[in-house]
Amino acid sequence: MMTKTNPGNFFEDFAIGQVLDHATPRTVTEGDASLYTALYGSRFALQSADSFAMDCGLEAAPIDNMLVFHIVFGKTVPDVSLNAVANLGYADVQFRAPVYPGDSLQTSSEVIGLKENSNGKTGVVYVRSVGKNQMDEVVLDYVRWVMVRKKDETAAAPSPVVPQLTDRVDPADFTISPDLNFSAYNATLAGSPHFFEDYEVGEKIDHVDGMTIEEAEHMMATRLYQNTAKVHFNQHQMQNDRFGRRLIYGGHIISLARALTFNGLGNAQLIAAINGGSHTAPTFAGHTIYAWSEVLEKVDLPGRSDAGALRIRTLAAKDLPCDSFPDKSEDGKRDPAVVLDLDYWVIIPKIQQVS
Amino acid sequence: MMTKTNPGNFFEDFAIGQVLDHATPRTVTEGDASLYTALYGSRFALQSADSFAMDCGLEAAPIDNMLVFHIVFGKTVPDVSLNAVANLGYADVQFRAPVYPGDSLQTSSEVIGLKENSNGKTGVVYVRSVGKNQMDEVVLDYVRWVMVRKKDETAAAPSPVVPQLTDRVDPADFTISPDLNFSAYNATLAGSPHFFEDYEVGEKIDHVDGMTIEEAEHMMATRLYQNTAKVHFNQHQMQNDRFGRRLIYGGHIISLARALTFNGLGNAQLIAAINGGSHTAPTFAGHTIYAWSEVLEKVDLPGRSDAGALRIRTLAAKDLPCDSFPDKSEDGKRDPAVVLDLDYWVIIPKIQQVS
Amino acid sequence: MMTKTNPGNFFEDFAIGQVLDHATPRTVTEGDASLYTALYGSRFALQSADSFAMDCGLEAAPIDNMLVFHIVFGKTVPDVSLNAVANLGYADVQFRAPVYPGDSLQTSSEVIGLKENSNGKTGVVYVRSVGKNQMDEVVLDYVRWVMVRKKDETAAAPSPVVPQLTDRVDPADFTISPDLNFSAYNATLAGSPHFFEDYEVGEKIDHVDGMTIEEAEHMMATRLYQNTAKVHFNQHQMQNDRFGRRLIYGGHIISLARALTFNGLGNAQLIAAINGGSHTAPTFAGHTIYAWSEVLEKVDLPGRSDAGALRIRTLAAKDLPCDSFPDKSEDGKRDPAVVLDLDYWVIIPKIQQVS
Repeated sequence: MMTKTNPGNFFEDFAIGQVLDHATPRTVTEGDASLYTALYGSRFALQSADSFAMDCGLEAAPIDNMLVFHIVFGKTVPDVSLNAVANLGYADVQFRAPVYPGDSLQTSSEVIGLKENSNGKTGVVYVRSVGKNQMDEVVLDYVRWVMVRKKDETAAAPSPVVPQLTDRVDPADFTISPDLNFSAYNATLAGSPHFFEDYEVGEKIDHVDGMTIEEAEHMMATRLYQNTAKVHFNQHQMQNDRFGRRLIYGGHIISLARALTFNGLGNAQLIAAINGGSHTAPTFAGHTIYAWSEVLEKVDLPGRSDAGALRIRTLAAKDLPCDSFPDKSEDGKRDPAVVLDLDYWVIIPKIQQVS
Repeated sequence: MMTKTNPGNFFEDFAIGQVLDHATPRTVTEGDASLYTALYGSRFALQSADSFAMDCGLEAAPIDNMLVFHIVFGKTVPDVSLNAVANLGYADVQFRAPVYPGDSLQTSSEVIGLKENSNGKTGVVYVRSVGKNQMDEVVLDYVRWVMVRKKDETAAAPSPVVPQLTDRVDPADFTISPDLNFSAYNATLAGSPHFFEDYEVGEKIDHVDGMTIEEAEHMMATRLYQNTAKVHFNQHQMQNDRFGRRLIYGGHIISLARALTFNGLGNAQLIAAINGGSHTAPTFAGHTIYAWSEVLEKVDLPGRSDAGALRIRTLAAKDLPCDSFPDKSEDGKRDPAVVLDLDYWVIIPKIQQVS
Repeated sequence: MMTKTNPGNFFEDFAIGQVLDHATPRTVTEGDASLYTALYGSRFALQSADSFAMDCGLEAAPIDNMLVFHIVFGKTVPDVSLNAVANLGYADVQFRAPVYPGDSLQTSSEVIGLKENSNGKTGVVYVRSVGKNQMDEVVLDYVRWVMVRKKDETAAAPSPVVPQLTDRVDPADFTISPDLNFSAYNATLAGSPHFFEDYEVGEKIDHVDGMTIEEAEHMMATRLYQNTAKVHFNQHQMQNDRFGRRLIYGGHIISLARALTFNGLGNAQLIAAINGGSHTAPTFAGHTIYAWSEVLEKVDLPGRSDAGALRIRTLAAKDLPCDSFPDKSEDGKRDPAVVLDLDYWVIIPKIQQVS
């Protein structure tokens, strides 16, 4: 009689080219969108109102990019990271198609890299995960790498394969819905007068507001994503951990930070891609999250005059207002209050030419 | 390079007749209605079940009046009250049309009054705010006045304009959906045997039940309404405030109190209008809210024999059961436990004549 | 002028054969399903995705059985258990038809048993409660018995009637939707390789994971079910109670335990019936819930080759991992950490014959 509970995969269970079809397809609904609003208070108009989205050419308000990310990501946890020691990073995160309420998502992952660590106890697994809707269209794909324990430390190490990873998605590769059209964009309703042209490379924006996190909130969020990582939910176990606390899912901080960026980037209606991100310190209930952003690049979009792309770096800090733009100091040491460093592309309307 | 974050309007930025079109249109959904039930436990049958609402002539269960109010109100915060010192009051709140899941709401406000305070540092701004749906129908309008800081204390004071405000909406002005029809009203399903005829002017009702508030609840509610007032969310900042705590959005208390009134006013299916209201003391997480009501008036509705209107005054108290009807004492001093004093009109069925 | 608040029924108010039509019909929506996911993190694929449910012959993802139970049950509280001293048990709980988003539920109860206690102060009331949808189809029925206070201790005792209760629902009596068809069942998407044939009578499964409960979570859940029992919500009152804490609704623990059983019983897509259950100790916010299960019986389903039924006993424990299967000791004394002992039938696919 075999154990019925999921043991997860250990480092030696992975092989290059292996495809993992992840469990628990999930229909995303208006209920999920409401909860997302209640959890983060996001105010980007495109996701907030069907009326606004239809004026931008879409059939309805799409599901927030990060909600799509969390749901697609959550499905990978039981197969990829149940025995993980650390989530090391992700790259080449690309949103490929809008997700609407009623769409059913599922995820699969291909193993694209393996490298055993010199200690013989763990190894790094690289996967490319793909989220698809019920019509088998890709809505999101991304690369992620995690450090996973070996079950049997005497198992032979595989030949190391380390994929070449981009640290910058090329805007020429963006997949933007052909329906999306900002030619009748209403900036008043969107809540910001600042268009693509108004931002400068190097500009820093303090998003001013702060948001305190409660245990009930991050746990409800993480369960909504059906992310089962134990460290977020089990205080009885975590009280004996080094922090003595439940860890907050890193994606919860990304969503909070993205919602905070509305104040300064209110027209950045969509995330096209995430170039990379680091969760640089743990966050716990009771922490207040602040955020600031820097404009890294400005790029025109091929074939579009209604919108451009801004490459943004957003940093979130705990219990520290961001008017001093906390970051690394000159010796390269990161401000210990910084908990997130995210590099991503947003789509933002250009000033409309009245013809 | 101008500041990208929203500075809000200061007293000298407002002018009589000015119209502010507020940001962030919002599609209200079944997900919002579910969260509203989870947050307050409301049991009024009309909003709870499509089947009951259809038996009352409506196309579906309408969105709770106070949820509509909170969403319409939330949109005004970034333009009207970001630099407010105090919310002074509201009047002439009228619900004009039912809101159904799928409707998209937006809000605009007209400045109808301005009066600088004698200290030269602040002034009172009066606005009439109008919430409309995607068909440009008014669903709610109301007057609100707030005390707002001046940015430049040397700026000249405007000619004072103080609008004449009613402290009682005239039931002849009510806009009740012509579809609404209580002739087949099922009081058993509604959960109360008490009709319009059963209430007496001067009658006091202790609503008995108490509800304790948690931080996660009031923050989720207030974010659901996309109300961005900082005092509700940022413990890191508020710890240095005079109370050392996050303040709970006054509307959260109204919704809690309204839900508590079900026990005693279970047939009061709709709020037609709010005559006025005061948040008389701050509320914090951990407080338990109780409520009691007094019947102020009973009025027939023109052209309707199936329902009448009761003018109700509901008081909410923190950590104090309301069997002694806490209110003002003889010297006019308010009981310090009272946190809300709300004067409003409800629509309630009359005893049905079997023809 | 009679008291307008609901006094509830006292023991002497009940009579054999009496039918109570309960208030507050409730349309169950996608919003409720999302909140349910956020509160418990359930991952059973049939309720998670329309796409999966349609592959199993259903029109859409049905509402989770326990969410249906909680909503149907909640309606009985104001009439049956407002003056209850104790919830003694339930039996013969049968799910009769799938509930889909948009269905409107209501509940009625028939009094089927009455027995005054020898102290003359209380008595036991047995009711059979029936939940129906808007088409008057039964979706759930069950027997429940509660100890209720007498209002007037001198009131005459009724002739005792104690119904014969089954402690095992006969699988021949199950009502399984004729649309349900597991012949194309995808176990990979369901997240478990273990079918009906893989379980053995007597097998014990530690579900491994633990979930800590917050006040905001159990109160939001219980309000979502419109369950008004005061002990769950009013800390101001409960601080003087023997535990000094708000009690968590027993059904919240059932839902948590059911969600935890996914890890080990991931293909147990539906609950067909609950044979009985005991809430053996109170649970409070801050407790971490673990669960384990025992397979009591395996039964073929008449006329079906695609699925069978497992009779499962699931025990939940607070702040105690269940790798040692906490239960009764040899002297019959229950482990004090055990808070729930639930005996129920699940429907689980059989290994598919490739034809």
